[in-house]
Amino acid sequence: MKRTKIILEDNDIPRQWYNIMADMPTIPKPPLHPATKKPVGPDDLSAIFPMALIEQEVTQERWITIPEEVLDCYTLWRPSPLYRAHRLEKALDTPAKIYYKYEGVSPSGSHKTNTSIPQAYYNKQAGIKRIATETGAGQWGAAISLAGVFFGLEITVYMVKVSYNQKPYRRISMETWGASVYPSPSTLTNSGRAILEKDPDSHGSLGIAISEAVEDAATHKDTNYALGSVLNHVLLHQTVIGLELKKQFELAGDYPDIVIACCGGGSNLGGLSFPFLYDKIHGRELRVIAVEPESCPTLTKGQFRYDYGDTAGLTPLLMMYTLGHDFVPPGIHAGGLRYHADSSLVSQLTHDRLIEARAYHQTEVFTAALLFSKSEGIIPAPESSHAIKCAIDEALLAKEEGKEKTIVFSLSGHGYLDLTAYSDFLEGKIIDCSFPEDKIKEALQRLPVID
Amino acid sequence: MKRTKIILEDNDIPRQWYNIMADMPTIPKPPLHPATKKPVGPDDLSAIFPMALIEQEVTQERWITIPEEVLDCYTLWRPSPLYRAHRLEKALDTPAKIYYKYEGVSPSGSHKTNTSIPQAYYNKQAGIKRIATETGAGQWGAAISLAGVFFGLEITVYMVKVSYNQKPYRRISMETWGASVYPSPSTLTNSGRAILEKDPDSHGSLGIAISEAVEDAATHKDTNYALGSVLNHVLLHQTVIGLELKKQFELAGDYPDIVIACCGGGSNLGGLSFPFLYDKIHGRELRVIAVEPESCPTLTKGQFRYDYGDTAGLTPLLMMYTLGHDFVPPGIHAGGLRYHADSSLVSQLTHDRLIEARAYHQTEVFTAALLFSKSEGIIPAPESSHAIKCAIDEALLAKEEGKEKTIVFSLSGHGYLDLTAYSDFLEGKIIDCSFPEDKIKEALQRLPVID
Repeated sequence: MKRTKIILEDNDIPRQWYNIMADMPTIPKPPLHPATKKPVGPDDLSAIFPMALIEQEVTQERWITIPEEVLDCYTLWRPSPLYRAHRLEKALDTPAKIYYKYEGVSPSGSHKTNTSIPQAYYNKQAGIKRIATETGAGQWGAAISLAGVFFGLEITVYMVKVSYNQKPYRRISMETWGASVYPSPSTLTNSGRAILEKDPDSHGSLGIAISEAVEDAATHKDTNYALGSVLNHVLLHQTVIGLELKKQFELAGDYPDIVIACCGGGSNLGGLSFPFLYDKIHGRELRVIAVEPESCPTLTKGQFRYDYGDTAGLTPLLMMYTLGHDFVPPGIHAGGLRYHADSSLVSQLTHDRLIEARAYHQTEVFTAALLFSKSEGIIPAPESSHAIKCAIDEALLAKEEGKEKTIVFSLSGHGYLDLTAYSDFLEGKIIDCSFPEDKIKEALQRLPVID
Repeated sequence: MKRTKIILEDNDIPRQWYNIMADMPTIPKPPLHPATKKPVGPDDLSAIFPMALIEQEVTQERWITIPEEVLDCYTLWRPSPLYRAHRLEKALDTPAKIYYKYEGVSPSGSHKTNTSIPQAYYNKQAGIKRIATETGAGQWGAAISLAGVFFGLEITVYMVKVSYNQKPYRRISMETWGASVYPSPSTLTNSGRAILEKDPDSHGSLGIAISEAVEDAATHKDTNYALGSVLNHVLLHQTVIGLELKKQFELAGDYPDIVIACCGGGSNLGGLSFPFLYDKIHGRELRVIAVEPESCPTLTKGQFRYDYGDTAGLTPLLMMYTLGHDFVPPGIHAGGLRYHADSSLVSQLTHDRLIEARAYHQTEVFTAALLFSKSEGIIPAPESSHAIKCAIDEALLAKEEGKEKTIVFSLSGHGYLDLTAYSDFLEGKIIDCSFPEDKIKEALQRLPVID
């Protein structure tokens, strides 16, 4: 019997998160206030975030202690297993060793719970009663709903309308954990109403939903805002993935040549790769690849500049790869990864060539997902399947080159709540949308110019 | 940080299944041929089962070796974790220790994969090309579809029509793994056509779907039949659950006072409890509780006698608790557990008072499921939630009595493919159906009388 899983004990859950700002060659430029265009201070953010998270957003301390209450929740599913994909390797007839770190074991089905738990915890500590947030494909909305019930917080989710309609199971899971879910753009906020006035049939975007949630939080005293990706503290929380993974590779007596994750806002990629980038920054040879959809190609086709995090321009400007904050990706794309920009940390590291980026079309991604599910059993989330496609390509390249490489990718979530997308794919209803070059050009031209 | 999970390594997967027939006080009476009413021999069964499984059906050997190829698949998700439900205990404020063994980690989301894998393996060994089977709520159909793709077998699934319509995600998962799925009763078989002639709007039953699958297998030379519960070899394969669990309790330094599982055909209950019943038969004190729905109360309201396994009377007669082979449980019940009878082994052990039985209404089961998902995070399958309800009741009783009992239940699967049932429950659409006493009486009167 070959060893398939490298399993850790409850006690092996990391006690500290790793902050890459302590080690990265270039610290990202600071966030700017949307009105004054000057660097924001803690006070500017305190209307929508608790101070503990604001501190985590800016600190350059290398290690941040994980609170006991958060660890207690982490034990519900962490440490997550590392799998050796023997059956996929055999299907590809590759000399490469393929591993995957599986975050779908979390009760919400994805890695997002790694940050929703501490975010709910710190908000509860700060006396907050309710959290307003957005969700795209629904992984984040589910994760924060679960965290809300654990810490006794009300959760309001603005869910991108196209997903709200396409993914009823995601919505139901949030409601089962007690959250209130509204399709965005909604009539509940000024931002939502403004969009609906211009385009009553708008199918929404993550940028629009963020505007709605931020507005909701900013206009209610007992309510804060929470974001499931992009921000530094979110990526910080996700580093439990990569920290566990390093320990698991030690146990396996192996080390990766290539580390792969899908990239929307960048939280799964950051969580998986930052502890390995520490090694790379300190001289170890390895490649980190961010994989994104061709329909929303932020890292591969975007510009590295200041942009708003949301469509209405309510959030601070962040220095990041962006397609323009009012870019609305094609609605037909079945997976998540539809944010118009990327985390500042991931953007800076990509700009500094510590991370490579690659984009795939959705049909080749679903083809890879099917091969994976027929080899390894698990039906992957469409988001995670971008990483699978890249891992398969790298494994086939290794075969061509006759090299025995070690590849690890993040299976950031399962696809059991996304099965209608598989049904559509099997029925030939999913087609590749060509890269919307003109729309992106236009969106980029509308960006504010920062000196 | 409290220890939440008791985790085993790949190497701890049992190498042998446990056969309770070696130890039970009364061996069940033999299956009878449906035409002659005489005990069936191996030849009677060889038209639809491979000889290896027929041998496992009748052997009284205590230990059966698990083939290496089956172990290789088991490592994809086994050993399954044992959880200590700290958060549920706190919510109940009970002195009882509550554990659950979680089988939802399998790629198909339930315990059914424990037997679908060996069944596919032995059929492949016997040169079979295709397997015809039935599925109720869809857990078994998904499990055999996955096993089929692993061993290169075509899979045809007759899915009870009410579930086919209510649970599209289950169907899609089967199709994603390559299976063909038909709503039953279908027009593909004589049995299906006969039912549709009498009742064109029939929403189907497990008994009808079994008739269709057995007929399909019996009339095609390269095709065998497979059943996901009830039969001795199925329960045998499931004993990996209880065998792992005993090892996990050893590691935890604990031992259960009460072992609880839901019971439809009996495979999850048998798999969990048989290794513990070995101890009970040899003098150790413990209780085993089978939990079933009030709408299909086989063990609590059925008769212990010979009956057919299917509606059309194509299968052998088995000695079991039954409500009558043409009893069709109310269509509104959201979970599985809708089979008209129980495994012979479970029936005999219940008759011999080694197993207790209990029935619950579905709304109290869903209420328990919600409490569980808000405490432990995981949204449970409606089937498994019957066991949760019973565990909660026993924990509250322990509180009333001021006793520190150790309770373990089987969380046989997750509910992420059953979320429409939760949505219906949250919207107040799920109501309790009163026990259909008259219909059961009628169905029992139609049973063949065996001397």
